[in-house]
Order: sequence, then structure tokens, then C-alpha cells
Amino acid sequence: MRTTIESTCATSLHRLRVRFCETDMMGIVHHSSYLAYFEAARVAWLRRRGVTYARWAERGWHLPVVEASVRYRAPARFEDVLEIETVLTQLRSHSLRYAYRVLRGEECLTEGETRLACIDSAHQLLRFPDEVVEVLCSGETQPDQDGV
Amino acid sequence: MRTTIESTCATSLHRLRVRFCETDMMGIVHHSSYLAYFEAARVAWLRRRGVTYARWAERGWHLPVVEASVRYRAPARFEDVLEIETVLTQLRSHSLRYAYRVLRGEECLTEGETRLACIDSAHQLLRFPDEVVEVLCSGETQPDQDGV
Amino acid sequence: MRTTIESTCATSLHRLRVRFCETDMMGIVHHSSYLAYFEAARVAWLRRRGVTYARWAERGWHLPVVEASVRYRAPARFEDVLEIETVLTQLRSHSLRYAYRVLRGEECLTEGETRLACIDSAHQLLRFPDEVVEVLCSGETQPDQDGV
Amino acid sequence: MRTTIESTCATSLHRLRVRFCETDMMGIVHHSSYLAYFEAARVAWLRRRGVTYARWAERGWHLPVVEASVRYRAPARFEDVLEIETVLTQLRSHSLRYAYRVLRGEECLTEGETRLACIDSAHQLLRFPDEVVEVLCSGETQPDQDGV
Repeated sequence: MRTTIESTCATSLHRLRVRFCETDMMGIVHHSSYLAYFEAARVAWLRRRGVTYARWAERGWHLPVVEASVRYRAPARFEDVLEIETVLTQLRSHSLRYAYRVLRGEECLTEGETRLACIDSAHQLLRFPDEVVEVLCSGETQPDQDGV
Repeated sequence: MRTTIESTCATSLHRLRVRFCETDMMGIVHHSSYLAYFEAARVAWLRRRGVTYARWAERGWHLPVVEASVRYRAPARFEDVLEIETVLTQLRSHSLRYAYRVLRGEECLTEGETRLACIDSAHQLLRFPDEVVEVLCSGETQPDQDGV
Repeated sequence: MRTTIESTCATSLHRLRVRFCETDMMGIVHHSSYLAYFEAARVAWLRRRGVTYARWAERGWHLPVVEASVRYRAPARFEDVLEIETVLTQLRSHSLRYAYRVLRGEECLTEGETRLACIDSAHQLLRFPDEVVEVLCSGETQPDQDGV
Repeated sequence: MRTTIESTCATSLHRLRVRFCETDMMGIVHHSSYLAYFEAARVAWLRRRGVTYARWAERGWHLPVVEASVRYRAPARFEDVLEIETVLTQLRSHSLRYAYRVLRGEECLTEGETRLACIDSAHQLLRFPDEVVEVLCSGETQPDQDGV
């Protein structure tokens, strides 16, 4: 199964502010922090579509990252306000892909991608139910609650 | 020097949402994450008073934590919206103290305190300049930009 | 119940090397990293007494931190080899206390304490079984496997 | 410039043990922790060749990650002893590439790659000096100090 996704429906923005603890001794955001930003952004992406990922996780339904890649173009710094643009780029029967761009104003600092598998609490692959596919393809239905 | 602080001036609230990466295999927020929450909350506390801590840090003016304590009463969980209540409780010539309460709705999950020293880039103690003392005692002057 | 602990039996050393990602833009180890060091050190402390904490955790038996305090005297830096001295200082029916000193050679950089409760997977308090009390009071029985 | 690297010279192993704080509420090591493992492993890789990266960093000579990718095959768990196999796979005038495999016994849990640029404290690209190229291509000269 491959589901065609309209990019206007597939995109959300998540704003966050860089924390001191996310910097390193180079004086910039540590490269591993961007995986945390991507994660926060895709949880917010789901929330914009009415999905509370915490409820899924409590029920043992998980979307672990099975592939991740990041290209670092320019450093983000402490207290920067960043916008993470998150796009669902692929939706298959048991996995999906997101692409991310980390923006500071007009400047794109970092780009990345993750592939996530859908599994149950026994770590077995799960097929996305039809109603979930519908939600994932529906576009934003909830107001922005940036940051929180 | 001891400066008397009015508690209405000395208090700010900072809202944040628990990230997945902040949880541990007990299914709750890892105890070290609260130090990051306290830190984000006191940087926001400064921002509410017109101080951008990142500018201080770039100029080599730092407020390192020299003492920290935390009492954990009830666990926070993934995607919880938390309010961190931050109160400046002591202001001396070269150091200050904050007290924190982590709230989920009416419930206080965690309490803590930190003492911070004021140092320069050579890690020498710095006396707070008069204008900084004034700002620290002034109360909020900036609108809430919760989360970001 | 209060169990008297002989300090020679109650002490273990754990060596680790500071990672780059544990530093912050002040160029020193971030203050929250010490809670991770204390945690690694007390897991190693248990391992020296034949207890694999991961097995406990898998069975839903946990020792969450309910209080923590840290006093920072001097900064640790990237690639420093640190020794964490961990002492069991109190053992009660449902909780215990550890004290820690972070040493770089002869110098004590940081001191701290944690109190841990014993709970089950339903987050209910558990009384330490007699055989566990015996193990906790026994002193080291396993060779050092520092770092790993 | 492209330098040919013999793979026997280019490979080192770094052992570490998974910390509790590196797990998440899925009960496994959080996917961002592997970037920290790769980082610790390449710092150890340099140490095996007589290079203390902390000295480079203090002098303002840095190797920031400009690209990273990870493929997660099987989860690592709390207290697992992991071996990180690190191979220098490309050495150019201003950048280099490492490939990593995270092993638990015979099993490869995770694979990854990073590209690092060589820059100075003003974040300008630096050409690797000849003596550094020599060291990077020389193979291990220092004994194993696993973990620490």
C-alpha cells in the first residue's frame, strides 16, 4: 500500500526555543538535540490532527524511529526561536516517513528525515488501521498550541 | 548585601510540554529532566523581566548552578503540560536562589531549589551591578511567550 | 526498620569519562549530567554486589529517585576521567539513601545525595525483602568492570 | 585531496554500558542516544591514535558533525554492554567520514555514518595539517582504555 499525500495537508510547523542544556562546549546546539526537536515536532504534527501520541504509547502502540538522517547547514544557538517544518512524505501499510526543516526566520539551519515503523507492545509490526490512515492524510484539524 | 524581594514581583510561570525523549523505561519523566525544566523556567523568568540570558552568556557572563535540590512527589508523563512556578527567593551580592514548583493543573509534582553564582568568562565571581539588581527585583515587564 | 551499615561495605568507586554531549556552552559539564553520573554509579554499585538492576526493572521492581541534591564545587570538563564514590548511607524498610562524591584525582568536584524509594510496577511501595537487605549490606562480591 | 585508508588501520572498538537515563518509555534505548555513542566512540578512536580531542577543542579546533545517518535494526536495552565499531571511511582536505556499527555480542543492532568538517574557533573551515593526516591514517598506537 502506498498512500498519496497532498503536501498542503501533510505539513505542520512547530515552534520551540533552544534550551541551555541543548548546547555544547562549541557554543552551539549539540547535533543530537535535533533528533529531539524532530520528535517534538512530529508529536505536535499528530496533535494538530487530533492524535495524542501519549495515548497511543500508553496502549502499547508505538512508532519507533527505524532510520534517521540529518544535514547540518548552520548552527542554532541558545535561546533561538526555531520553527520545525514537518512533512509526512510517505505512508505505507506499516511505516511512514517525515521530512523536517529547522528554520530560524528565513534561514534553513538543518534538514532531516526519519522513517518510523508501526509496532505493538510486543514489538510486532502493526498495519495502520483505515481510520488512522484517514487521520494522517486529513490535514490539520486542531488549533496551534505552539510550545505547549 | 541582602536584597528584600517582594514575592509578587519575584514569581513567574513557564509552561512546557513533556517530550518523549525526557521519559525513561519506568514510563515517567526521568528525574534529571527536571533540572532542564528548572533551567528553561529561570531563563524564561529573566526574559519576562527583559533580560536575554543568551546575550549575557555570549558576553561571558554566567550564572552557573552551584547547588540544586529536588523533591519528587508524583511523576510527570509524556505529553503532560506542566507549569513551572519560579520564585527568586534570595539575592545576594554574588549569588541568588530560585525555588521551583512543577504543577500539572492543581497538583504539585515536584519541588526544587537552585543557588546560582554570578561569574565572568574567566570563572571569577562577579558582583551583580546595581542596574541588574533593579531588574531582578522589578517584576515582569514583558508579555508571556510561553513555550517559546 | 533501620539497618546499620558499615561504611567499608557500603562504598564503591565507578570510573567514567566525560562525553562531549555532556558539556554545555560554558565549556564545562552541564549540571544535570551529574544526576546521570550518580545513576550510573549506583547501578555499578549494585553490580559490584551481584545485583543486575536491569533484571529488577524488567520485573517491574524499581528504585525511583524521590529526593536529590547536588553541590557543585569545581567544574568537570570534556574527556576528564572521573571517579564517582558511592556510599549507601541509609537503608530503611522501603527506601534507601546514597551519598556521592565526584573525584578528579584528589580533587572533589561535586557532592550529592539521593533518596530512592522501592516500588513495584503499579508504583506501590515495596518492602525490601530480607535477602535484598542482606545483599545491600554485604559489600562488594564482584570484580570491578569499570566503564562497562 | 583524497587519502586512501587501509581498513585495518582505520578501525577501533569502543565498549560502553547503556545507562538508565538513555532509555525511554518504550523500554529501549532512545534513538538519539546512538549519536552520543557514536561521538564517544570516535573520541575514543582518536585517543587510540594518541589524539586528545579535548585538547583540540580547548584550542578552538573542532570537528562538528555536518551529516549523520542511523539505521536502527534491533533495540539496545538498559545495562547492555555494547561495542561500537568505528571506521574512518573517508579523509578529505577539510572533512572526514566515519561509519559505525553498534554490536551486542555477534548481533549488529544499529549502523550509522557521520561526516565531520574541520573548523577553527571562528567556525571557518580548516585544512587538516599533514601531521594530523599522518596520525589519522596510522592505526592504533595507544592501549585500550575501554569505558574510560
